[in-house]
Amino acid sequence: MNFASDNTSAAAPEILAAVTAANSGYAMPYGNDPIMEQVRARLREVFEAPEAAIYLVATGTVANALSCAILTPPWGAIFCHRNAHIEEDECGAPEFYTGGSKLVLVDGAHAKMTPAGLSEAISFTGRSGVHNVQRGMVSITNTTEHGTVYSPAEVAALCRVAKGYGLPVHLDGARFANAIVASNASPADMTWRAGVDVVSFGGTKNGCLGVEAVIIFDPAKAWEFELRRKRAGHLFSKHRFLSAQMLAYLDGGLWLRLAAQANAMAARLAGGVLTVPGAHLVHPTEANAVFASFPRAGHRRAHEGGAAYYLWPFDQSLDGADDTLLAARLVCSWSTTEDDVDGFLTLIRG
Amino acid sequence: MNFASDNTSAAAPEILAAVTAANSGYAMPYGNDPIMEQVRARLREVFEAPEAAIYLVATGTVANALSCAILTPPWGAIFCHRNAHIEEDECGAPEFYTGGSKLVLVDGAHAKMTPAGLSEAISFTGRSGVHNVQRGMVSITNTTEHGTVYSPAEVAALCRVAKGYGLPVHLDGARFANAIVASNASPADMTWRAGVDVVSFGGTKNGCLGVEAVIIFDPAKAWEFELRRKRAGHLFSKHRFLSAQMLAYLDGGLWLRLAAQANAMAARLAGGVLTVPGAHLVHPTEANAVFASFPRAGHRRAHEGGAAYYLWPFDQSLDGADDTLLAARLVCSWSTTEDDVDGFLTLIRG
Amino acid sequence: MNFASDNTSAAAPEILAAVTAANSGYAMPYGNDPIMEQVRARLREVFEAPEAAIYLVATGTVANALSCAILTPPWGAIFCHRNAHIEEDECGAPEFYTGGSKLVLVDGAHAKMTPAGLSEAISFTGRSGVHNVQRGMVSITNTTEHGTVYSPAEVAALCRVAKGYGLPVHLDGARFANAIVASNASPADMTWRAGVDVVSFGGTKNGCLGVEAVIIFDPAKAWEFELRRKRAGHLFSKHRFLSAQMLAYLDGGLWLRLAAQANAMAARLAGGVLTVPGAHLVHPTEANAVFASFPRAGHRRAHEGGAAYYLWPFDQSLDGADDTLLAARLVCSWSTTEDDVDGFLTLIRG
Amino acid sequence: MNFASDNTSAAAPEILAAVTAANSGYAMPYGNDPIMEQVRARLREVFEAPEAAIYLVATGTVANALSCAILTPPWGAIFCHRNAHIEEDECGAPEFYTGGSKLVLVDGAHAKMTPAGLSEAISFTGRSGVHNVQRGMVSITNTTEHGTVYSPAEVAALCRVAKGYGLPVHLDGARFANAIVASNASPADMTWRAGVDVVSFGGTKNGCLGVEAVIIFDPAKAWEFELRRKRAGHLFSKHRFLSAQMLAYLDGGLWLRLAAQANAMAARLAGGVLTVPGAHLVHPTEANAVFASFPRAGHRRAHEGGAAYYLWPFDQSLDGADDTLLAARLVCSWSTTEDDVDGFLTLIRG
Repeated sequence: MNFASDNTSAAAPEILAAVTAANSGYAMPYGNDPIMEQVRARLREVFEAPEAAIYLVATGTVANALSCAILTPPWGAIFCHRNAHIEEDECGAPEFYTGGSKLVLVDGAHAKMTPAGLSEAISFTGRSGVHNVQRGMVSITNTTEHGTVYSPAEVAALCRVAKGYGLPVHLDGARFANAIVASNASPADMTWRAGVDVVSFGGTKNGCLGVEAVIIFDPAKAWEFELRRKRAGHLFSKHRFLSAQMLAYLDGGLWLRLAAQANAMAARLAGGVLTVPGAHLVHPTEANAVFASFPRAGHRRAHEGGAAYYLWPFDQSLDGADDTLLAARLVCSWSTTEDDVDGFLTLIRG
Repeated sequence: MNFASDNTSAAAPEILAAVTAANSGYAMPYGNDPIMEQVRARLREVFEAPEAAIYLVATGTVANALSCAILTPPWGAIFCHRNAHIEEDECGAPEFYTGGSKLVLVDGAHAKMTPAGLSEAISFTGRSGVHNVQRGMVSITNTTEHGTVYSPAEVAALCRVAKGYGLPVHLDGARFANAIVASNASPADMTWRAGVDVVSFGGTKNGCLGVEAVIIFDPAKAWEFELRRKRAGHLFSKHRFLSAQMLAYLDGGLWLRLAAQANAMAARLAGGVLTVPGAHLVHPTEANAVFASFPRAGHRRAHEGGAAYYLWPFDQSLDGADDTLLAARLVCSWSTTEDDVDGFLTLIRG
Repeated sequence: MNFASDNTSAAAPEILAAVTAANSGYAMPYGNDPIMEQVRARLREVFEAPEAAIYLVATGTVANALSCAILTPPWGAIFCHRNAHIEEDECGAPEFYTGGSKLVLVDGAHAKMTPAGLSEAISFTGRSGVHNVQRGMVSITNTTEHGTVYSPAEVAALCRVAKGYGLPVHLDGARFANAIVASNASPADMTWRAGVDVVSFGGTKNGCLGVEAVIIFDPAKAWEFELRRKRAGHLFSKHRFLSAQMLAYLDGGLWLRLAAQANAMAARLAGGVLTVPGAHLVHPTEANAVFASFPRAGHRRAHEGGAAYYLWPFDQSLDGADDTLLAARLVCSWSTTEDDVDGFLTLIRG
Repeated sequence: MNFASDNTSAAAPEILAAVTAANSGYAMPYGNDPIMEQVRARLREVFEAPEAAIYLVATGTVANALSCAILTPPWGAIFCHRNAHIEEDECGAPEFYTGGSKLVLVDGAHAKMTPAGLSEAISFTGRSGVHNVQRGMVSITNTTEHGTVYSPAEVAALCRVAKGYGLPVHLDGARFANAIVASNASPADMTWRAGVDVVSFGGTKNGCLGVEAVIIFDPAKAWEFELRRKRAGHLFSKHRFLSAQMLAYLDGGLWLRLAAQANAMAARLAGGVLTVPGAHLVHPTEANAVFASFPRAGHRRAHEGGAAYYLWPFDQSLDGADDTLLAARLVCSWSTTEDDVDGFLTLIRG
């Protein structure tokens, strides 16, 4: 019963098998391996984007930070939600990669920006000519950090605001598969048709060992991306091992099946938690994470029973009155089973 | 017959087996996996350095660049050989990671600095107070980019120069195993006993999928390293897959066996090439790379026969008189076989 | 009648006379001029800080940005008020100079942080170990951007919060003289005795041509400051012209007399505006700036009468109903006269 | 007798008078002052470049570094002479402002690049695709750091090499006036007609207090320049004082008269030194600096007689045999007189 994060799970067997199969003979390094050719073709199909430039890196943080770096100059503001991963969990990677841009934070319930909130933030920034940081770009996280999902229409509405100011849009899709499954949308509808320019397409959290694709719909920035990636030490020599993961991830829709399992388990978990007296959801459960509040006694039993997860925020304590409500983040992954969920529910119910 | 680079080879079966074995159940992310505990212990043993801070990353470029970033401020000069990897093959990664330091280049035969050459470069830099870039650090590449090896005594002599100016020393050991095998030295003698402060300990080129260790002998800079690594997107969530590679690489001296094979094949290849009429070595073959010059007709036959390698420098042409000497770089790896070598020699002999 | 900014005013005659006097014969460059020796001595007296390191630069933005750069690493958060100059009016200079730090914004009425607000912001940042931007430093603007003034006790209270987290404190004193006059405090009480580590001591807005001092109470960071200043192109060769301005500025308390005039004119102006029917102050007038709201008809007459100032915020319009209240920023300087003020009041009263 | 540098001299009286005259009433800040309008018009005339974007800064280092920053990305190499000011005397300012570019050094007698040397350096750089730093830009220093001057034809020859690789060209004209006087060339011939894209047009060393113009012939990069300047804290609020200096500097050809005096005094000095037994010039005297070698006894007498100048290199000693030749750098300025020169010659002749 590990709900600490989707990144505590193992890799899916199909992914590992592909890595094993790729480990044969010699292969050209640095993305010139033949498997990468197939990855490019497959992702262009999946996104209905035959011109897109496609690159692989090994972590979500760098996928996001390099995407920002090609979309905004150092003096450009990056508009994002206050709870975006790029703001809260990357130790300033966007600032490092862009050469010192400023993240301008937009509020909004359940980690989602609203068009009005975004518009206000953009409008406010860059009003004083050369004296201010300029308007740079927008970054949308989908699935959000609070487990909610923007629909394609919601993404499009945010992109319209951005485009009204001439700004490019990045989509942080570390949990893109979960959002697609949740919204039953096509990848194209969720991204370029809505106005997104660059996507971080996550694999690691959803069953890979460590691979993310960056999809750049307008390839004009592709060479700059390659140089920035190399200069950052993120160009892999034995690149075939990234390629193999991504190809297997896409093959036969594995990425969607893995995310569907994670989302289904989260739904089951959320439903179960709500049957606990006093429990409620802090954020709606729309993808693979459950943010729920339930009595401390349940938490205590869960921890004693070996369940791994984080209280959210961290600074709550298991010590204290039994019936106090404590909030938790419970993340399901491709490897979460019904037994995991039901076992956990049994524990917290006592 | 692939001599293009040691990074075109596959991973050793022991390494892949370890990755497979690690893919079981849940593991704490970000270097908190139990395998990493073993990696730290093992590397401290190998280097006889019980206090060393140990980190894993996935590429040699970032191992080097992060090492530089913790050793020199932005206004510090990095003294290195003109043919160092950090100068020639990293698209400015040290400049990016340090925030704009300057690489000051030292000449020397066969890609090796001499103490006198290093001393002159350091002495010349930073003479004018605040107006110059300051003296920052020294970086030594061992095995060098030209396939030669510094002995521990030679490393120590360079370190004495550096320490005479109060400068820290980094050792780029992307091919550290090859240098250790070639010199029959202990890792400790080659590094901290000689005066080295931080080592990039390579795994990728020598049979791993993609893993390098950074070994910081004085842990005072460890936390800064962690922050810089995270901020650069080089902290892996599913870190166990890096850990597993490195542990298997160290286990039972695998790293030395793999390098011994590569070095032995290079020696066999160099010896064979020298029997070709007109052939000579451009640099001594001391580790796993052969820099040799032999008649164009032999190159032509090798390429027609499917041998993969680079003319060195690149801008030579296979078209032209048969007996013109063309130079080549031929890199052996853990996976190079006697048959590969002998087959290649047969081709170039015609 | 120019209330657009204190930087639209000329230099005080004493300052210009000093520049003229300095223009004689040869002088050592780069801060080695004999006048600079006197500046150091005088500022150490003024601040009762005999060990302080003292440097001159020509703009307030770089005084602030260099101060930040020596106080926080790139991964450190700079805690400041949402309306701080470093956040709103420097086009990201702190981010540029620090190598990509993040400004974490604290709210508070009239552009002043409260200890509770600051504490909450610091507490929230850096809770997740390596994943977050770390706690870096605090920057206090005094006089604030809204014309209010922190007392020494208020500065000390903020510093206590900072020091509780081990953080250094910068004071942006572009209008330090106005704050000192307003609070009748000693420079030492307002700065190092309250816990401030580095001060930007402004001259430009208060009667100089262009000079600011950076005062570093603990000289351990002095050499780093010198290197960063040089590297940024802010070390003047004909430095005597900066020195001469600063010495004249300090001489006989000129800096306080100039600020007293500016503050007195602002008080006169605020008092007068409040006699206009419907008018009110948006922020208390505590130093040399008046933020006031009064009917549009008054603004229209003022503009037609040649008064220069900004509506605040900028996006209000002079077109519309006469009696709508529009807010304005009216800045007085050393050169503002009673006639200027009274003439303006006559205009807006109609 | 001060030959230490042209920056030890005072400002010319015409320049100071203009600053004094500008100190009247209110003026719009940040380059919006009416004098700046005249500066733009005048410089466009002087350079026969009606479209040029014109900006003022206060130091030569930042003029150069900002010029580089708009001409090359962080991963671009800056090709310049080994003795260029940007390499030797700016503490890494180009690296800081560009975000970490690499200066690739070109050798050449008397601090002048040759087309062949430049071509070889460019050709060598960027041969390996993404793995190398890319070819970025060329920077030419004229007058050079060794007091020699490129003719317009020589500048054009270097620019042809640069343009052959598609690279933009910067001209560091900290001593541009001296080069123009020396070569009797027109500013247009020396710059854009020869292929130069951006010029640092120096004023400080030639009689100003502290002002340099950056002239960008293609204004497409103008807005980026403005943002970078602001972000670096180099946009002056009381900008009129920069404008006034530059306008006076241009007015009636003052800049050329001042440089002519400096050059003439250097010629007189060089001629005189050569009459000293044993003396010779280390570099040809073509502008306002004399690099000469003469017996130690003469140096000793000069120093005892109060002459200020630097031995070049610095590490020579006045102690030792009388007849040993020591080299010196002797810089003349607008304020150097015949008496200064003749007095110095009398001293060294003994």
